[in-house]
Amino acid sequence: MQKRLYEEVASRIRGMIEKGTYRAGERIPSIRNLSRQMRVSINTVMEAYTTLENVGMIEARPQSGYYVSRRRLEPAAKRETQKVVEGMAPNCVTFAEVSLQVMRNLRNASLVPLGRGSPSPDLLPIDKLNRMLAVESRRFRSQSVSYAATAGIQRLRTQIAKRSVHSGCHLSPEDVVVTSGCIEAVALALQATCRPGGTVAVGSPVYYTFLHTIQWMGLKVLEIPSTPEEGMSLPVLSYAIKHNPVQACIIIANFNNPLGSLMTDARKEELIALLARHDIPLIEDDVYGDLAFGPDRPTTAKAYDEKGLVLLCSSFSKTLAPGYRVGWIVPGRFQQKVEQLKSLFNIATATPTQLAIAEFITNGGYDQHLRKLRRAFARQMACVRDAVGRYFPQGTRVTHPEGGFILWVEMPEGVDSLKLYEEALRNGIAIAPGVIFSTTGDKFNNCIRLNAAFWSERIEHALETLGDIARAMA
Amino acid sequence: MQKRLYEEVASRIRGMIEKGTYRAGERIPSIRNLSRQMRVSINTVMEAYTTLENVGMIEARPQSGYYVSRRRLEPAAKRETQKVVEGMAPNCVTFAEVSLQVMRNLRNASLVPLGRGSPSPDLLPIDKLNRMLAVESRRFRSQSVSYAATAGIQRLRTQIAKRSVHSGCHLSPEDVVVTSGCIEAVALALQATCRPGGTVAVGSPVYYTFLHTIQWMGLKVLEIPSTPEEGMSLPVLSYAIKHNPVQACIIIANFNNPLGSLMTDARKEELIALLARHDIPLIEDDVYGDLAFGPDRPTTAKAYDEKGLVLLCSSFSKTLAPGYRVGWIVPGRFQQKVEQLKSLFNIATATPTQLAIAEFITNGGYDQHLRKLRRAFARQMACVRDAVGRYFPQGTRVTHPEGGFILWVEMPEGVDSLKLYEEALRNGIAIAPGVIFSTTGDKFNNCIRLNAAFWSERIEHALETLGDIARAMA
Repeated sequence: MQKRLYEEVASRIRGMIEKGTYRAGERIPSIRNLSRQMRVSINTVMEAYTTLENVGMIEARPQSGYYVSRRRLEPAAKRETQKVVEGMAPNCVTFAEVSLQVMRNLRNASLVPLGRGSPSPDLLPIDKLNRMLAVESRRFRSQSVSYAATAGIQRLRTQIAKRSVHSGCHLSPEDVVVTSGCIEAVALALQATCRPGGTVAVGSPVYYTFLHTIQWMGLKVLEIPSTPEEGMSLPVLSYAIKHNPVQACIIIANFNNPLGSLMTDARKEELIALLARHDIPLIEDDVYGDLAFGPDRPTTAKAYDEKGLVLLCSSFSKTLAPGYRVGWIVPGRFQQKVEQLKSLFNIATATPTQLAIAEFITNGGYDQHLRKLRRAFARQMACVRDAVGRYFPQGTRVTHPEGGFILWVEMPEGVDSLKLYEEALRNGIAIAPGVIFSTTGDKFNNCIRLNAAFWSERIEHALETLGDIARAMA
Repeated sequence: MQKRLYEEVASRIRGMIEKGTYRAGERIPSIRNLSRQMRVSINTVMEAYTTLENVGMIEARPQSGYYVSRRRLEPAAKRETQKVVEGMAPNCVTFAEVSLQVMRNLRNASLVPLGRGSPSPDLLPIDKLNRMLAVESRRFRSQSVSYAATAGIQRLRTQIAKRSVHSGCHLSPEDVVVTSGCIEAVALALQATCRPGGTVAVGSPVYYTFLHTIQWMGLKVLEIPSTPEEGMSLPVLSYAIKHNPVQACIIIANFNNPLGSLMTDARKEELIALLARHDIPLIEDDVYGDLAFGPDRPTTAKAYDEKGLVLLCSSFSKTLAPGYRVGWIVPGRFQQKVEQLKSLFNIATATPTQLAIAEFITNGGYDQHLRKLRRAFARQMACVRDAVGRYFPQGTRVTHPEGGFILWVEMPEGVDSLKLYEEALRNGIAIAPGVIFSTTGDKFNNCIRLNAAFWSERIEHALETLGDIARAMA
């Protein structure tokens, strides 16, 4: 009964938004007012507003009330799926110089960091970490200068295993191999599962570093269409697997880079079942999983893995200290192979930074820090979305992720993101143009990725400049 | 005149040793006595003894005098060269489980470390390093948690470039890419120069990790015979290059692992000229170069490189802190490719450990530390050689390197080093059996590598046990 009532309220408000009664950026009635007007309880209105917020139709602003979201990226997968499947074949990755240049510029500290993949140092517990680095290397005196075990120091592996219950896994320390960041974990996973000439399935648009790694290893890539709402299209993946010799699949199920998508648990389970039927390993990058804006972090696809086919990869680079280079992989049945490869990459990950992070997770208040960090990213994400709404050309759409700090911006067809990138660069601003997220050059030509890892007046000003340039192009 | 005199003295003593007048382990006349007996100056006898010491025929023991060296490994290359060349073809590397098991055991801290590749922590400046780690991460507060540049932090690159004059190079900071240890540097070098299916030339016996890396990358290996006196046979290499599509050559010219050989400058120059004529890149591992027992460290082959064909690899793992995982590569004309690959391996090396090592080299008394370390290794090497002489079966030969801490022991034909390894393991002792240093199983069946990285009563006792086992087998 109650349930139907809040749905009715939600549907009424949705209708008013869709008919333009309330327009993008406008304030909708306060909870108290609507409750009086519609003669329903405060709780009912709150539930209705939460529903609309969850689908990205409205957004809450602290101390101010609810507003109609400025832009939304509409689902596009169903429309495109058939076309894509028919022309589907694995592509060799051959990178234009532009992609490498973009990667360099995204890391260039002198540019406004609208594409930086690591959080602002202001959000990180620098002093506590550095103190722990000092104390722990004194405490484990000769261990600190000696090689760690290839799989990592035991205390860190134990902490990672303990935390795995939050994502639906029940790991033991022995399941974990410490790596020098998540990128190394993914590289090890690809080396352990694929042979040169093989094919890897990825969501499209795809995080460009995956494409570079795939190219480096002499692999081919099969791009599976994905949407901000659902993530990778499973029907297309299923078709692709049947018609191509896919050796591995890479996925970012939680707060995808770049789409921000969060796969539902049901779809994660479906994905795992699909790949298990074909005995295809899944490389799961969960580096944004701990950055959910809600109270609980989502489960990993790994949680549904019964055959040891999932290689779960993550790191502390988005939450504690990118410069410490500490990540991990849970390689399932590929454990021995991954450990061997890790020892050939660099014997082991540096010891002192492993010691410091193990101590931080044990006694540093990691969960409290995560809560603060997630609130900060949620706030920054809202600010960037808001600025895009204000400054970008009419018809621009922007994603509304429930975690992480990455936004995908789709501009009107006329805007060439590569030209926008170049013009932005001349203004001292670094962004990631859509072309580098695919091997088929023009598919995301009018898209850019913006990272809300930083927020300041300088960032806002840069977004205004970017919007001006884009408007001139539209 | 003077010169002929000391040579005459040397030749007289050599004759007496060769005829058995003075036997292995026996004391020869003191400098003062011989000077009186032969009516030559003290200086002349000293020069003569130095000559004999340099070729490993006699050895000085502090406060005790000069002794005939107990065992010497005779040159064997010339005898074997022709045979090897005729049957020469690249081999695929397919590793038996034993090799991986050996690698694990060499790193197992609960075993007596007769094969450990890293120095005893007692020899390392732990407290100073840890202090610098703490101070520098505070000093470069937000830099310490942030990604370093892929090529490494500028201060460290500058120090590495400055020190390169000691090895005959004149590098600029921009020539250097920091890596997570030397193994990573070599892996990057192989990735940058070879394509899967290609062939790599290596000295034989060859450091087993190179073989594993070559196997991982789907490359083939061409083993070039080498001797403790001269290192890799250049005539055989020349022949091999002409008859095989060699894509790269790996060399440890200074204090080779495992042979201990030191190539002369003339042979380094010859090697560089030979490879330059065929445009073949040389991957030079110089990780032991700073550990010369003499006053000056040897030059690198890189010093003779005019075409940018040499990729020089090294690290601080043998001199400062293996657990910090800081090494470097000077990739010559492959610089851009190596930087790209490094960013795909793990974006960059950990920042705090780079900061600490940069500070140690700048203000920590690195040269003074190196002098102490080299004296310690020279002493430990003498102790291990001496113990081998005392405990191992009659007919055992052992190398006499002028730097590093690695000894190659050739036992009588009957001794099976794999069985010795297994029996040693049952006694809690880890050694490296000869079989893992080649792809052709039985070539070094009666050899083992012993590392003099540690010395203690426990080590001496382990060598006695090892000798007992070997004698029972002989």
